[in-house]
Amino acid sequence: MRVELAEASHDILVGQGLLDRAGELLQQAGLAPGNVAVVTDENVGPLHAPRLLGSLEGSGYDAVVHTLPAGEETKSLDTIRGIYEFLLTAGIERGRPLMALGGGVVGDAAGFAAATWLRGIPLVQAGTSLLAQVDSSIGGKVGINLPRGKNLAGAFHQPRLVVSDVTTLETLDDDEFRSGLAEVVKYGVIRDGALFARLEVDHEKILARDVATLTDIIEACSRIKSKVVAGDEREGGARKILNFGHTVGHALEAVRGYGVLRHGEAVAIGMMAAARLGRDLALTDPILLQRLEKLLVRLGLPIRAPFRAEVEELTSLMARDKKVEKGNLVFVLVRALGQVEIVRDVDPARLSSVLESVAG
Amino acid sequence: MRVELAEASHDILVGQGLLDRAGELLQQAGLAPGNVAVVTDENVGPLHAPRLLGSLEGSGYDAVVHTLPAGEETKSLDTIRGIYEFLLTAGIERGRPLMALGGGVVGDAAGFAAATWLRGIPLVQAGTSLLAQVDSSIGGKVGINLPRGKNLAGAFHQPRLVVSDVTTLETLDDDEFRSGLAEVVKYGVIRDGALFARLEVDHEKILARDVATLTDIIEACSRIKSKVVAGDEREGGARKILNFGHTVGHALEAVRGYGVLRHGEAVAIGMMAAARLGRDLALTDPILLQRLEKLLVRLGLPIRAPFRAEVEELTSLMARDKKVEKGNLVFVLVRALGQVEIVRDVDPARLSSVLESVAG
Repeated sequence: MRVELAEASHDILVGQGLLDRAGELLQQAGLAPGNVAVVTDENVGPLHAPRLLGSLEGSGYDAVVHTLPAGEETKSLDTIRGIYEFLLTAGIERGRPLMALGGGVVGDAAGFAAATWLRGIPLVQAGTSLLAQVDSSIGGKVGINLPRGKNLAGAFHQPRLVVSDVTTLETLDDDEFRSGLAEVVKYGVIRDGALFARLEVDHEKILARDVATLTDIIEACSRIKSKVVAGDEREGGARKILNFGHTVGHALEAVRGYGVLRHGEAVAIGMMAAARLGRDLALTDPILLQRLEKLLVRLGLPIRAPFRAEVEELTSLMARDKKVEKGNLVFVLVRALGQVEIVRDVDPARLSSVLESVAG
Repeated sequence: MRVELAEASHDILVGQGLLDRAGELLQQAGLAPGNVAVVTDENVGPLHAPRLLGSLEGSGYDAVVHTLPAGEETKSLDTIRGIYEFLLTAGIERGRPLMALGGGVVGDAAGFAAATWLRGIPLVQAGTSLLAQVDSSIGGKVGINLPRGKNLAGAFHQPRLVVSDVTTLETLDDDEFRSGLAEVVKYGVIRDGALFARLEVDHEKILARDVATLTDIIEACSRIKSKVVAGDEREGGARKILNFGHTVGHALEAVRGYGVLRHGEAVAIGMMAAARLGRDLALTDPILLQRLEKLLVRLGLPIRAPFRAEVEELTSLMARDKKVEKGNLVFVLVRALGQVEIVRDVDPARLSSVLESVAG
């Protein structure tokens, strides 16, 4: 699959066993043998770094590995400092690639380091989680959290290559796998009614991690995301639709401190909030709301927060998030499957009642 | 003066008293009234922030100021962390501008924060030093130092507007002013024989800081730099010529720790090294080397390091610098005024003898 961008067209490869062919794939992407920095984390590294390194070294690359602690706390400025030190010690010069092997946290943090090391070096996103493969490794958004907010610092840095080896999904723990499914559902809602319907039909195969089904789904999601991104590289407009479920989701993720709710869990609840808000505004068909709720439940995703949160606290967190324009919250609401609408002037009372319904 | 870039064309304004008209100029640049973050340092802030703020507030902007310590040590990751905290507290959302009021250090550090805050917000470069006005505020290069190397982390982030108020040069101390002249000389050497000749003739006026002469010179330099940048926004090729004097210069700046030699002083010595290397390679006319030496001395710039440095230490620092390609040092050498050449395969013995001559 090819992503055609003005300045940085690149391939997205989805398949089984791709990490065993990484050396060859890097060469095809125009990254000549030489040194390569690999950034991974303590969970993923032991599982997948050996075969990646074997392949790289077999193709004449000289790979050096930096292993981060696992978890959202890793997306910090201190981690970036550590990656810079690693890149300096590893002698990574301009033009040499950094490969991010891991989930969204590794891709975001290592990607931010790649975006800013020597003012930008080539980045290869090798996502090993479902979330990374369908979402965070595509589109060039990289970044870190600050103590007071998620993804507040970052950059747009398109990868040179995206390698999604679906065999890595076998080793994901259940919670993390399910969390990734929330973003899959999101693509169905915002752009692809057929994908949504397939999820409704194939939910058992998906939860059993049937590789062929997952490959299809990841390809479909990658195609949707890369098309949206190609139309809006710097998030001026069209790309906003990818934020469906994220306005409330991010606030729920932040309100008890990162790590209490997984990103996908928060997005699932956020999608419920957005669908309810749409229904209350007579925009979203109540049937669609029911289908969404049923699908999320079948996929083992939460439809309301496992804790109570104050509406004021949530709205104040939303107001600090990046999805604010001229002081107004921006919501992505759904009109029908595959058809969303950006809404800016949501009545605070309606919003409160929806927030009560998911976190009250 | 207009810089025409593929993605981020913008104006460079050079003149007297521009800070007193900042509000109006921001509006002309399409930055609507609202909040504005101003980042400055403890030297520049007290001198120039009041009139800048007066003008901004007079035009309906709500300006908040963050003051950094003065000096090269400020170009650190800790400073970036502090600016992020400031931007968060100040409520700087997407699309709101950050204005860097100060010399190169402020522009580089605040520019890096602007490049990465919410994945990039508009940046207004209001350089108050000669170095900033002729060099660092133009071209979009922003960044910070790491303990083991200068400008190792950074980004390309084109400013939305460059405002060079030449009246701020009156308050520069002599060393800093002279240091900026090194970059002016550089432009003469690499692109503009007439500018070089004018510096030879007008050196007294320049040292007396005659405002009309300085305005002419800053305009000429801004024009050269913006043309070179427009031809090569991401430093793929043509922009390398701006590194004349910088390969050796950066090593000299680093070898005793930043702050011992000013950037411009190091560049002056580096230009001497490059000119000597060119002469030894029968590329540079010995007469040109003499003219360069004479001009630098007249402008009060050093032509050799005030300390001894080991050749091995300097070459190892150069090897770590960004001006390395496939392990080879890259030198910008001069054939004639306005005519430079990129040289990659310099004989180590020749390089050693040149390094001995400037720091032995």
